[in-house]
Amino acid sequence: MNLDEKFMKKALELAEKAAYENEIPVGAIIVLNDKIIATGRNQREITQNALKHAEIEAIESACKFLKSWRLTGCELYVTLEPCPMCAGAIINSRISRVIFGTHDPKAGSCGSIIDLFDLPYNHKPVVTCGILQNECSSVLSDFFKSLRESKKKSI
Amino acid sequence: MNLDEKFMKKALELAEKAAYENEIPVGAIIVLNDKIIATGRNQREITQNALKHAEIEAIESACKFLKSWRLTGCELYVTLEPCPMCAGAIINSRISRVIFGTHDPKAGSCGSIIDLFDLPYNHKPVVTCGILQNECSSVLSDFFKSLRESKKKSI
Repeated sequence: MNLDEKFMKKALELAEKAAYENEIPVGAIIVLNDKIIATGRNQREITQNALKHAEIEAIESACKFLKSWRLTGCELYVTLEPCPMCAGAIINSRISRVIFGTHDPKAGSCGSIIDLFDLPYNHKPVVTCGILQNECSSVLSDFFKSLRESKKKSI
Repeated sequence: MNLDEKFMKKALELAEKAAYENEIPVGAIIVLNDKIIATGRNQREITQNALKHAEIEAIESACKFLKSWRLTGCELYVTLEPCPMCAGAIINSRISRVIFGTHDPKAGSCGSIIDLFDLPYNHKPVVTCGILQNECSSVLSDFFKSLRESKKKSI
């Protein structure tokens, strides 16, 4: 297991924690100099806050940790391709590298619907995708399968 | 002064407050049934948080007020065209209408760099632009002019 896989495994653990809380399972961590400085998981339902995606929680926490809105040198690992809000937050916070597990055909904005990092904004992170793709994809498909089954049971 | 101008005037007051605090002056309000339910102003420097744009503060506050991540029926007034993070947050929170004052050629994502609301995401707000455009543009150009002058003085 290389370093990217090791850190994505941590993001996956956070996604699993979100699933346990009945949230769409997405997890994120931020790494600086090979150390985890911030974590986040999707918490939209529990908080009833549209902003509470995994990446947003991790970015907010990393800014607090570094006492700076500039996260230059930081790497963000996230199990699912960022949506436009999160891709925009990555641009705004100057995160240097983004590593995501699996594509999101419905809202992904780093290549699926559009690649925001390929447009002329004032920052372009390096992107790696497909790290632990099967695991990152399964945590989502298992969640939605179990949701469908529990809905069937309740009818 | 029509209703859109009246509400944009309120967003402008928040932008002026941000300028007074030495922040890039952008202000936002959220209106539901012709009543202001949330406000926000840019606070990136004072908080050292990359997420603290005016729209984000207003959306977070509106979710708290309505106890819901769905801001269906809400209208967001903002003095400057939203960036990709804020346009994405508008999509995620299902805000029904966006009214902005002036375009942002550097990061604007509702027509300038790209129109995110014209891509196949799962929500498309109605957009009105150019309300109190001169005032919304002046509050920014006055701020940057004064910043340049104070820098000259300090050399």
